[in-house]
Amino acid sequence: MDKLQQQAISTVRVLAAETVERANSGHPGMPLGAAPMAFTLFENMTHCPKNPDFINRDRFVLSAGHGSALLYTLLHLFGYGVTKEDLMSFRQLRSKTPGHPECDRTPGVETSTGPLGQGVANAVGFALAESMLAAKYNRDGLDIIDHYTYALCGDGCLMEGIESEAASLAGTWKLGKLIVLYDSNGITIEGSTDKAFTEDVARRHEAQGWQVIRVTNGEDADAIEAAIRLAKDDRERPSLIVVKTTIGFGSPKAGTADSHGAPLGAEGVKALKANLGMEKTKPFETPVDVQKYMAATVDRLNKAEGEWNKIAKAYKAKYPELYDALMSELKGKLSAEELSAKISPSEKDDASRSYSGNVLNALADVLPNFIGGSADLAPSNKTYLKGKGDYSAIERTGRNISFGIREHAMAAICNGVKLHGGFNVFCGTFFVFSDYMKNAMRMSAIMGLPVTYVLTHDSIGVGEDGPTHQPVEHLAALRSMPNMKVFRPADSSETVDAYVSALTGKGPTAVICSRQTLKQYPHERGEGFKGGYILADSEKEIPDVILMASGSEVGTIMQAREMLKGMNIDARVVSMPCLELFDVQPAKYRESVLPSTVRARVAVEAGSSQCWYKYIGLDGACVCMDGFGSSAPANKLFEIYGFTAENVAKVAAKTVKNNR
Amino acid sequence: MDKLQQQAISTVRVLAAETVERANSGHPGMPLGAAPMAFTLFENMTHCPKNPDFINRDRFVLSAGHGSALLYTLLHLFGYGVTKEDLMSFRQLRSKTPGHPECDRTPGVETSTGPLGQGVANAVGFALAESMLAAKYNRDGLDIIDHYTYALCGDGCLMEGIESEAASLAGTWKLGKLIVLYDSNGITIEGSTDKAFTEDVARRHEAQGWQVIRVTNGEDADAIEAAIRLAKDDRERPSLIVVKTTIGFGSPKAGTADSHGAPLGAEGVKALKANLGMEKTKPFETPVDVQKYMAATVDRLNKAEGEWNKIAKAYKAKYPELYDALMSELKGKLSAEELSAKISPSEKDDASRSYSGNVLNALADVLPNFIGGSADLAPSNKTYLKGKGDYSAIERTGRNISFGIREHAMAAICNGVKLHGGFNVFCGTFFVFSDYMKNAMRMSAIMGLPVTYVLTHDSIGVGEDGPTHQPVEHLAALRSMPNMKVFRPADSSETVDAYVSALTGKGPTAVICSRQTLKQYPHERGEGFKGGYILADSEKEIPDVILMASGSEVGTIMQAREMLKGMNIDARVVSMPCLELFDVQPAKYRESVLPSTVRARVAVEAGSSQCWYKYIGLDGACVCMDGFGSSAPANKLFEIYGFTAENVAKVAAKTVKNNR
Repeated sequence: MDKLQQQAISTVRVLAAETVERANSGHPGMPLGAAPMAFTLFENMTHCPKNPDFINRDRFVLSAGHGSALLYTLLHLFGYGVTKEDLMSFRQLRSKTPGHPECDRTPGVETSTGPLGQGVANAVGFALAESMLAAKYNRDGLDIIDHYTYALCGDGCLMEGIESEAASLAGTWKLGKLIVLYDSNGITIEGSTDKAFTEDVARRHEAQGWQVIRVTNGEDADAIEAAIRLAKDDRERPSLIVVKTTIGFGSPKAGTADSHGAPLGAEGVKALKANLGMEKTKPFETPVDVQKYMAATVDRLNKAEGEWNKIAKAYKAKYPELYDALMSELKGKLSAEELSAKISPSEKDDASRSYSGNVLNALADVLPNFIGGSADLAPSNKTYLKGKGDYSAIERTGRNISFGIREHAMAAICNGVKLHGGFNVFCGTFFVFSDYMKNAMRMSAIMGLPVTYVLTHDSIGVGEDGPTHQPVEHLAALRSMPNMKVFRPADSSETVDAYVSALTGKGPTAVICSRQTLKQYPHERGEGFKGGYILADSEKEIPDVILMASGSEVGTIMQAREMLKGMNIDARVVSMPCLELFDVQPAKYRESVLPSTVRARVAVEAGSSQCWYKYIGLDGACVCMDGFGSSAPANKLFEIYGFTAENVAKVAAKTVKNNR
Repeated sequence: MDKLQQQAISTVRVLAAETVERANSGHPGMPLGAAPMAFTLFENMTHCPKNPDFINRDRFVLSAGHGSALLYTLLHLFGYGVTKEDLMSFRQLRSKTPGHPECDRTPGVETSTGPLGQGVANAVGFALAESMLAAKYNRDGLDIIDHYTYALCGDGCLMEGIESEAASLAGTWKLGKLIVLYDSNGITIEGSTDKAFTEDVARRHEAQGWQVIRVTNGEDADAIEAAIRLAKDDRERPSLIVVKTTIGFGSPKAGTADSHGAPLGAEGVKALKANLGMEKTKPFETPVDVQKYMAATVDRLNKAEGEWNKIAKAYKAKYPELYDALMSELKGKLSAEELSAKISPSEKDDASRSYSGNVLNALADVLPNFIGGSADLAPSNKTYLKGKGDYSAIERTGRNISFGIREHAMAAICNGVKLHGGFNVFCGTFFVFSDYMKNAMRMSAIMGLPVTYVLTHDSIGVGEDGPTHQPVEHLAALRSMPNMKVFRPADSSETVDAYVSALTGKGPTAVICSRQTLKQYPHERGEGFKGGYILADSEKEIPDVILMASGSEVGTIMQAREMLKGMNIDARVVSMPCLELFDVQPAKYRESVLPSTVRARVAVEAGSSQCWYKYIGLDGACVCMDGFGSSAPANKLFEIYGFTAENVAKVAAKTVKNNR
């Protein structure tokens, strides 16, 4: 190993420790232990610090997101525009260097990480996207898309089930250009990994179809470099490089859990610097020799884009249409009006999962980069894109992805695909199993990624499968998630709106669909974009009561409205497919739909009432599901839980009376 | 294989298919394929049909819960009191035979299953509980607790990450009495497992410390029996028995995904019966020979309890106190008054996670069967039980369990421990990571299991770790879950109430604690049991405004109240530690706390506003978090997001004005 390289690695360690120290908050242990492997990787990756968005860059994911100080230090030294001052404002409000990496805040950060295991699954998504784009666009040795995806993870990521799911898929898909470096330091917060993690991680990954390479001394940069080379050479299998390291290396707390999540203290940093021969270096300073070494390194790396430009130029000349298509798909801007005009709602009454299936297929015809799949429920979720092929290690242009029964990895992989660029991506499962992937959905929301979640079998309408399969609290759970749009369409037209909104708006969208058939009622197209609208108005200017519902219960309140007429009660029916969109409409519009003078309001939804008090207040009423369902035919369940026009009319009449 | 045994297995197949057929709903594929292994297991298990609650019975978990028709058929044939009529009302309202197994509905069903992977993790919990009870109570060859735990799973369970987490722990803990039978039929809903599941499951489990036994022909009951024997003989390693089967065996749809989740149809059932030589058997009938065979088998099995009674008698004679302790712990009844009297709140101001840590330790002193642990965050969650030892393969009486960074398996294992009986169990992680275990928490709620979830770092109070670590929507998510009690205590006294309620009430409880210090305000003990109470009243009989909050924001509204005094506004302060308990108080009490005439109401909570409209209505206001947080010191965050006394007072003053 080069002496200057060694010094540069020591500089990474000291800067990371000082960064944590100054913030008086953060995680020094991992940066100190993993500095050599991460630095060596940054030297060997194809990337372009002067243009962090360079299309064909290798992707790097710090799955062990608590080691953010390591990443920021690397971005600082490798010329990504993370300054000394940025390091000094680590973990401070609105800084470029937040506690865990945030992809929309720091150049060179590919994905937001922190919740363990997510990053490895994101990396599988990056590698999946790369494999699909390469298969779709590369021609005759002109490999316009050809890059690796790297992730760095620790014991924590590898203990999480999501990693096992993602690893199993990466092996099945033979994602040979995925390389995971495992910072194996044998320590977690509660102490030695002997306590809770004695599995043979290497062998487990071999069983999952991976190449495993071992580096027995994490200080040996040459061995790390050799391992990376070996990993790159195997294009058939993803690679796990197991690197034995010492947590908190060089500090007095080396090898202990104490070094993990708390600053070393002034004395600790002093001792670290002394141990690394850097006692004379001022805080946050990079030795001049290292500066020079880094300048040369960065110059070398920055040439990557120029090399690729040559290929891109030749490609553009030979395949101008493909080139334009690729660039446009990587940009990924869609217009809601244009898209909406291309998709027609179904006419006949059907289950909203079927409306959804039709829209998905229509979108797939219109958008060649529309891809997705289900967690082994495509026939039930109606997510299969007909005639669009099945993605596999052999057929990488297939647009249907079989994720297997792995909801959590599925969602996190979709996040990776979306972050990579080039695709509109959706994934599906039963609504109740959104629980299995909730944190990955939250990561879509935090990052504002327009991943579309197709969640069918949305209530007790599931019927015989019983309470474990009947969502109750899930609408409330997703609606309370910031940045998540939740659409529960009542008919085919609202379903089209849901998908158009999902593909053209910001952030993720959950499209919640019924298993059972829904009756359609006539209304203008595009009403769904408002989130809530008057589907059937009262005859009086001021209605006696407002009935509101989403999805399958819109039909119920429409029927109830008819019954109420017979009771001389004049009801307005409001369909509310997306509360989030309704809430951001102008106040005047919202007032026109739900006039504040009308306090007799009834919300009907086969889910938790929690979402509805905002609209019904203390004087309204709701017909909702605040307990678990049961196993029985769906019709029976709707009846016993009160989701009948009769019951709604009764509740509405009482509410009118109470508000007189 | 015995001819009668073969006939009995054929009867299982036909009955299961007829059960699904009559319901016109359900999953015949798995019962047909797995009938020989499941039947052979039921013949070889130690169980006692005449007393399904026999203490020392082997536990059986149908992790592939969609195969419920198989389980019900076995319970029918093995004399568990599941009648022919019960089979005929499969999947009907309030029947004993719901769509997926429900443990509180059918004798012989140990746990509710359906969501894949949960059952295997439950089984790890059963085996863990057995190992702890055995170590604690068995003496001198008098093994009063000594049983196996079996699970039957399919490809679906094994793809889910929770299974990998649970398997890794079972291997680490060397749970040699755990035996999982894997119905390996190579088919999932989307088709062949080649599409999404090419991992070497056997080798993966070996890497995780398991013994793996292969049965290449799932029709060979002798081979299955031999495999079970081999599995039982290895007391050091959990065993996976990989049994190659054919989904839908004997039916025209055999070997295809079509047989998985839809009835075979009348013709299909007819063909099945013909193939199995049972064309003459009437629907739901058991051939006389099989009846006799089963009667003899059941007689034999029923002797198990008598055998155990002998041991129990000898044990009781020699160790009367231990015997009584065991019986009392298995019964597990606690009185809230008695428990409450034994636990004192802390006096000094502290973080509620520290109040929680004190209560957990006090409970551990009082209750010898109080056990639990964290997903590698014990020092942060303050969940460590001091002086109570660490559970491990070597020290099975340790009461602190290191689950590793595996939230999902942790929660599902705790469900298994609780279902087994003998323990009060808790588990902890950061509140934000409740997302990772949400479906297992839902299973606690569905089954009404009093598992206690200790969820610390409950808001933007987390500070520098940033949005990925700051819960926002999680209170709304858990509060909308039926049967889940969510306690967010404001002080030490409320924290005691939370745990007493958790341990003596029904169903699961989540105790949500702060990272940061909370100021304590004087009030009576036990107020927390009411869920919401007046902490500081207005001077007027009718307050100008009601301020309500939970946890850390109670201090904020107490300060705001003082400020409002200076503005001549008379505020009542209501602490709402548990909305679920408040909602079930008598209407008169609720009215006394929140009089309906007072519409000026302000809710303050550093979480989603969704939970609060129920109490503030259309005329109130809230200071809540409806967006994600940021990385910065906590004080800074509370300030910028409006959680200051100044801002609350301002909002309250405006609300008073609007309601005049």
